[in-house]
Amino acid sequence: MSIRVQKTFEALFELEEIRGIFRDALPTGLSDEEEAAFRQKIAGLKAIIADLEAGTGTPDVTKIAGILDIRSREEQFINIQPIQAAGRLTTEARKALISYGDGYSTCDFCRKPFRLDKISRPGIADFHADLAKWLNMDQARVVPGARRGFQAVTNTLVSKGDSVVVSALAHYTEFLAVENAGGVVKEVPLNDKHIVTAEATAQKIEDVRAETGKLPVLVMIDHFDYQYANEHEIAGIGKVAHQYDIPFLYNGAYTVGVQTVDGKMIGADFVVGSGHKSMASVAPSGVLAINEEFAPKTLRTTGMVGDLTKRKFGIKEVEMLGCTLMGGTLLSMMASFPAVKERVLHWDEEVRKSNYFIDTLLRINGSKVLSEYPRKHSLTKVDTTGSFDTVAQNHKRRGFYLSDELTKRGIVGEFAGATRTWKLNTYGLSWDKIHYISDAFAEIAEKYQIPVEKNAKNTCLYQKE
Amino acid sequence: MSIRVQKTFEALFELEEIRGIFRDALPTGLSDEEEAAFRQKIAGLKAIIADLEAGTGTPDVTKIAGILDIRSREEQFINIQPIQAAGRLTTEARKALISYGDGYSTCDFCRKPFRLDKISRPGIADFHADLAKWLNMDQARVVPGARRGFQAVTNTLVSKGDSVVVSALAHYTEFLAVENAGGVVKEVPLNDKHIVTAEATAQKIEDVRAETGKLPVLVMIDHFDYQYANEHEIAGIGKVAHQYDIPFLYNGAYTVGVQTVDGKMIGADFVVGSGHKSMASVAPSGVLAINEEFAPKTLRTTGMVGDLTKRKFGIKEVEMLGCTLMGGTLLSMMASFPAVKERVLHWDEEVRKSNYFIDTLLRINGSKVLSEYPRKHSLTKVDTTGSFDTVAQNHKRRGFYLSDELTKRGIVGEFAGATRTWKLNTYGLSWDKIHYISDAFAEIAEKYQIPVEKNAKNTCLYQKE
Repeated sequence: MSIRVQKTFEALFELEEIRGIFRDALPTGLSDEEEAAFRQKIAGLKAIIADLEAGTGTPDVTKIAGILDIRSREEQFINIQPIQAAGRLTTEARKALISYGDGYSTCDFCRKPFRLDKISRPGIADFHADLAKWLNMDQARVVPGARRGFQAVTNTLVSKGDSVVVSALAHYTEFLAVENAGGVVKEVPLNDKHIVTAEATAQKIEDVRAETGKLPVLVMIDHFDYQYANEHEIAGIGKVAHQYDIPFLYNGAYTVGVQTVDGKMIGADFVVGSGHKSMASVAPSGVLAINEEFAPKTLRTTGMVGDLTKRKFGIKEVEMLGCTLMGGTLLSMMASFPAVKERVLHWDEEVRKSNYFIDTLLRINGSKVLSEYPRKHSLTKVDTTGSFDTVAQNHKRRGFYLSDELTKRGIVGEFAGATRTWKLNTYGLSWDKIHYISDAFAEIAEKYQIPVEKNAKNTCLYQKE
Repeated sequence: MSIRVQKTFEALFELEEIRGIFRDALPTGLSDEEEAAFRQKIAGLKAIIADLEAGTGTPDVTKIAGILDIRSREEQFINIQPIQAAGRLTTEARKALISYGDGYSTCDFCRKPFRLDKISRPGIADFHADLAKWLNMDQARVVPGARRGFQAVTNTLVSKGDSVVVSALAHYTEFLAVENAGGVVKEVPLNDKHIVTAEATAQKIEDVRAETGKLPVLVMIDHFDYQYANEHEIAGIGKVAHQYDIPFLYNGAYTVGVQTVDGKMIGADFVVGSGHKSMASVAPSGVLAINEEFAPKTLRTTGMVGDLTKRKFGIKEVEMLGCTLMGGTLLSMMASFPAVKERVLHWDEEVRKSNYFIDTLLRINGSKVLSEYPRKHSLTKVDTTGSFDTVAQNHKRRGFYLSDELTKRGIVGEFAGATRTWKLNTYGLSWDKIHYISDAFAEIAEKYQIPVEKNAKNTCLYQKE
């Protein structure tokens, strides 16, 4: 780790030690002993900061709690890991997390009716209203990951043996949510461009009806899938679902938080997003937004009555199991939200950057893009069997030579050792970083005598509009 | 906020800004512009630290992300809030959170078979094994809160209309987990000391059989309940459940992480604990530990096959919905774990401190303790109708006068405005703090002419053994 980054962490940690002194102290102030400890820590902190400023010193702290390495991938490297890019915390989220990390930190001012989404200090109630409005839906709840949003919906709508239409590229968590509720997935085939079309969805619904004698109870489709991040015909699919009067769940795990999502325009009955995947939030976090029609059913409050005590907990929602994200997860989401609302307005720029990088990769002879091209997303699946893998065949490090070369250049997040088909994500990288990683891949190719074409095929793609 | 605490936060935040510069920079190092920004931030940081050291200056940062207050309850006050005490992060957990806050921070080295509990870097696999061993159970999984542990169990064992035996003091999340699975709760009555006995549990099982013609499918009882934190006859109840061959879920939301829990000695088939309530972890987090007999069923892996693609995600567990806590939540739990393992060994001391405080409260004429007494837990329900409430009746601030008096003395976490029955938790407070809050309550009583007896009734309780 660079000594400056190391010392930044050490300074943060030393301040947490100082904070610990205040936590242990009486409200009357520090005791002499605590004051001495404070002075000592301050002296330590100053020394760390002197090193930080000068770029000098050696690492003093290498483990947290004696077991955990300091994670400095985001400070040290350009991280192109496919699912991590849009989950990186904003600086404000990191500050919120410092302040609100403790267990039930959201609950200081929890008053009647004692439910997370009703808390007004901090402004959790307003945040819920904003979330729903932002997605153009009627209700929103935060959930421990998109998968828990799927589960709430399937558990509400799906009975044993019911069919749920999903994409042939459905994420595994959709399979599990359906299975968990006792249902059966029915996959819509892709067209020859790996796209789920409205037409194919209608056909699948017909097939299910013919096969089972019943309509599917839910259509659940990813706007951009996790494999190729191809854009599927989501609005048309919504329309089809409604023609059959089947509720439609829009899986926005790869859209909510990075691009504008308008639930009503899409015709979504449910919009599900992921906090840790696309909303710059701590895991597990996510959002489930619901329209007016399905909110009462999905967010039904408990009807259970204690047989003996006659106790009822009427305000608590069965599928949410009451409160959901009672601490740092939610606060990180809230702190990132202003930046998230702003960044979705610049999605076109993210797409241009994605295309710029992919275009460079395509200049490396033998490279292919398996995702739709030009790219409409920052996540892409590429095939370098005809380029980087040709080197791996004869390299003593096999496919790891590519990882080695990338790491040397400060790039991480590729699937270590993979030189055939693999995924990457350029989300949130500055143009400088995009140029840097593009040049790095071209440079590695040239180093191993893989021809690199001079001119991009689609320069128009990444020009400023 | 005290200026020193304020400046501690500002220094932490300034360091996060500095960290942001490294995050934005190329791997080749800071540009001239970034270097200038870095210098400026370092200068700012030094000024903050000078203020921190001298206790001077004025607040510069009052909001995070323009919306969130800085939460400094733990630094500024003694917090006796009933559910927050044992969820406060350890210093190491706060460091881990700084390092591992980003979305999918656990997944850098996720390799086949791609499941959270199999990741060895950081040592998540080992942590799972340690957790199971520590609870003397066979398997453990981390879950987004104890409630999600209940849900995994009820969804596995409970079918529509099935009965689940719970305590007449069962937490609402147990009600919801049963309702969510389609079951019905059947409450065991309390004895005259507000204790759930083994005998009453046996009787309830018999009653359910007589009433429904079927045995309950699950017995789910809290070791210490959330209302009184009374200790229930958990081992006897486990034995009874087994006599009827009914699986037994031990709800350790108020024990796992604060006292030693031995699942096998208790006869638990399931042990559920809460990370944010009792394991010094970020919410939502928890643990579900299972014995050999029920692990295969509860942790069954997916059997769903895509009808078209024939895709299977065989390693993923249906009730976990695959991976659970993919980031800071889990890492905070892991970082606190060494301290948590140590602190459970000192539970007797926590109980002594609890009794010391309650004993002081009982010296204030008219005060009662509604929980069992002497206390066996740090959470206690008290009744001050005969003491502090007599003042509230004629005070212009009504019950808020007590909150005002406590806040003035640096104590928070009481239910604001409540002067009749309310709960508090002394967990983790030093003896100095215990003496301080005890004196504060006595002092407030005296100020309002409520007689305070000189001698404690049970001084023996809090003596060092």
